[in-house]
Amino acid sequence: MRFSGCFIPTSKETPAEAQIVSHRLMLRAGMITQTASGIYSWLPLGVRALGKVADIVRQEQNEIGANEVLMSIVQPSELWKESGREQSYGEELLRFKDRRQRTLLYSPTNEEQITDIFRKYIRSYRDLPKNFYQIQWKFRDEIRPRFGVMRGREFLMKDGYSFDLNVEQAKKTYKNIFTAYLKTFKRMGLTPIPVQADSGSIGGDMSHEFHILASTGESLLYYDKKISEFDFSSPDVFKKFSKVYAASEDKHDPDNCPVHKSDLEQSRGIEVGHIFYFGTKYTKSMNATVSDANGNQIYPEMGSYGIGVSRLLGAIIEANHDDKGIIWPKEITPYQIGLINLSVDNEVCTALSDNVYQGLVKQNIEVLYDDRNERAGEKMADMDLIGVPYQIIIGQNSIANKTIEIKNRRTGEVSKVEQHDIINVDFGKINEAELYKK
Amino acid sequence: MRFSGCFIPTSKETPAEAQIVSHRLMLRAGMITQTASGIYSWLPLGVRALGKVADIVRQEQNEIGANEVLMSIVQPSELWKESGREQSYGEELLRFKDRRQRTLLYSPTNEEQITDIFRKYIRSYRDLPKNFYQIQWKFRDEIRPRFGVMRGREFLMKDGYSFDLNVEQAKKTYKNIFTAYLKTFKRMGLTPIPVQADSGSIGGDMSHEFHILASTGESLLYYDKKISEFDFSSPDVFKKFSKVYAASEDKHDPDNCPVHKSDLEQSRGIEVGHIFYFGTKYTKSMNATVSDANGNQIYPEMGSYGIGVSRLLGAIIEANHDDKGIIWPKEITPYQIGLINLSVDNEVCTALSDNVYQGLVKQNIEVLYDDRNERAGEKMADMDLIGVPYQIIIGQNSIANKTIEIKNRRTGEVSKVEQHDIINVDFGKINEAELYKK
Repeated sequence: MRFSGCFIPTSKETPAEAQIVSHRLMLRAGMITQTASGIYSWLPLGVRALGKVADIVRQEQNEIGANEVLMSIVQPSELWKESGREQSYGEELLRFKDRRQRTLLYSPTNEEQITDIFRKYIRSYRDLPKNFYQIQWKFRDEIRPRFGVMRGREFLMKDGYSFDLNVEQAKKTYKNIFTAYLKTFKRMGLTPIPVQADSGSIGGDMSHEFHILASTGESLLYYDKKISEFDFSSPDVFKKFSKVYAASEDKHDPDNCPVHKSDLEQSRGIEVGHIFYFGTKYTKSMNATVSDANGNQIYPEMGSYGIGVSRLLGAIIEANHDDKGIIWPKEITPYQIGLINLSVDNEVCTALSDNVYQGLVKQNIEVLYDDRNERAGEKMADMDLIGVPYQIIIGQNSIANKTIEIKNRRTGEVSKVEQHDIINVDFGKINEAELYKK
Repeated sequence: MRFSGCFIPTSKETPAEAQIVSHRLMLRAGMITQTASGIYSWLPLGVRALGKVADIVRQEQNEIGANEVLMSIVQPSELWKESGREQSYGEELLRFKDRRQRTLLYSPTNEEQITDIFRKYIRSYRDLPKNFYQIQWKFRDEIRPRFGVMRGREFLMKDGYSFDLNVEQAKKTYKNIFTAYLKTFKRMGLTPIPVQADSGSIGGDMSHEFHILASTGESLLYYDKKISEFDFSSPDVFKKFSKVYAASEDKHDPDNCPVHKSDLEQSRGIEVGHIFYFGTKYTKSMNATVSDANGNQIYPEMGSYGIGVSRLLGAIIEANHDDKGIIWPKEITPYQIGLINLSVDNEVCTALSDNVYQGLVKQNIEVLYDDRNERAGEKMADMDLIGVPYQIIIGQNSIANKTIEIKNRRTGEVSKVEQHDIINVDFGKINEAELYKK
């Protein structure tokens, strides 16, 4: 994509309203813009990165056989009366009346709605287990929205719901999802730390939060240093994790900690996922039954599983930035390569840049090509701010020295690719695989 | 995907509430389920087909250089006060108050919001033209929601907005989008007919509706038969269309029709897209200006462009079905091939079916594999209902005759692929390209 044709409104100014670095950088890089308090619109760069996160989440959910659905954003409040949450959920629930005076709500979570779908269609034990998920917009009317997409009111979430025949199978499902979550976050270049959690307004008796490590994180975590050495793709990863200590500040008691001081890590984290096993809370209150093998009606065991998809963008930036801007992990970056033409007025420079651009596009590499007629310093600062992991920089030096400079955004290291002919670049040397091998 | 692991709640019963065939078939095939009047949740088969439609729409928008954004679903009503639509839009606008008593609304369309984003960031003529789009949920509080996803209250829409420096360029943009729309619908296996339209509540002075032909369509269209012979990818397709007659019933005057009776086609159609050029209506009322080359502040010329993404699913089914069920165009089908094992209890049948399934999956073909322990008749009826374009049917005959049957869902034609060895199927003969060549 040519920068000149994109809408990437970067800014040098630090927005006054943004208290944390990810919020500042998302605004400055032109990824998001505020619509109202805690409500954001996503601009093209943000849409691309959000799509990458959603794709990874989707692939890992499909991998464990979860069924993708898309529940309506608006649902009738009657369902929440059945579960009892219409009262208990409080003012975070955004309720309103339609023109026929029926009370609707903007879904903050969908346990009731999925249970309603379940009881409409599923009758027999032979149809279980069933595992559903969606990637859909949610609204929680936070009293003090803050930190940009990290604690917004409207946000994109992966929410999943499982139905099992009995407790044993439900716990197996829970463990599978636990493992899939670790894999999901790991694939995004993050270090996830699962900690035991209270189940809050969802209710229930088994729950884990997934935090990712970031020095600017909201919560302080204490954990056995063994955790970071685990192989996340191993099938017994849940078992290993269950035996290893990890707790958030409010639960950590230094005097009764089972881990020796020398093995205890302390680090700040950001919650990006939360899973719950809560048994028959909703199937009972909403009377969702299936017949078991003996013809008896039983209440399936449920769990629910959330990943903050839009929140992850903030969390990833908190964990990956420097004073110049964002440093995208390669799995999430909106573009794989940034190409900067430093001398747009120089015909040879522009011909060379165009040629490199076309060559990369032909290899299906996602390139952000800065072809704008702006000062070199501004273009380099913008590309650093946007945070594409590799930059190809072409200027008058490239022509003089018959080399193209490739800069690693994270390390700042610059390598040079030689070219024998000013126009015919050896793309084998600057293709993605080659770059990421380094 | 194995049918046994999917959630595809098919039904033989004709739902009483569904008045039109697409609504009946979407419910019966387990694609959607009603949440409330005019509000639907999408089940896995529906999610897949909806994704295919959205992907084609997205590709064709990117192709013309439009910038993808994702505006918030909820927006403040203040923006609509500025444009004057807060009053004029009427009761279809779903308004509500948040916990701080600020009035918000569930966006039914986003002219105000995109103009607000535009005026926040774009200052100079050098940044124009700019063309934005999103694929996002909308809500219009219809007084009589009906026809399933064809006239729902909550729906998925591609809405696009363009900003140009002057009328001439705005018209050029309009023509480009007109052409992209034809291409978009054509790629979905549909025959689009553009007709001149009133611009309604959006306001403005140039507007076209895009209808697709379906015998069950809501509106009656009259058009020159030349239309269906046009090459949709030709760059001067707008010019050609502008010169050719096409009108909806309410505008068609038989006594003053410029087309000779023998050249006039009459057919029913369903509106799936609508484009508007409306000049400075929103840029003026919301004071969105840019400076021109002489430093003067001018109001950019705008257009807006909609495709009913969820509605298209209904429209495609209206245009592609028979009395057995849906017949998906190959571009939209949730699965490319349906594989039916008629004798799950027969070990050889199941080994052969599993083998065919694995072989197709390895070729990255999307297969719906009916491995359920149900009666053969029911499985064949379900696959016909679901409407996958090609079915591979494996039963005891396949073993006896060393052949695999391939059924074309649209024509009902059955061809046989021979296999020399009962297990080693020649996948070259049943791969997608081979099938679709026929």
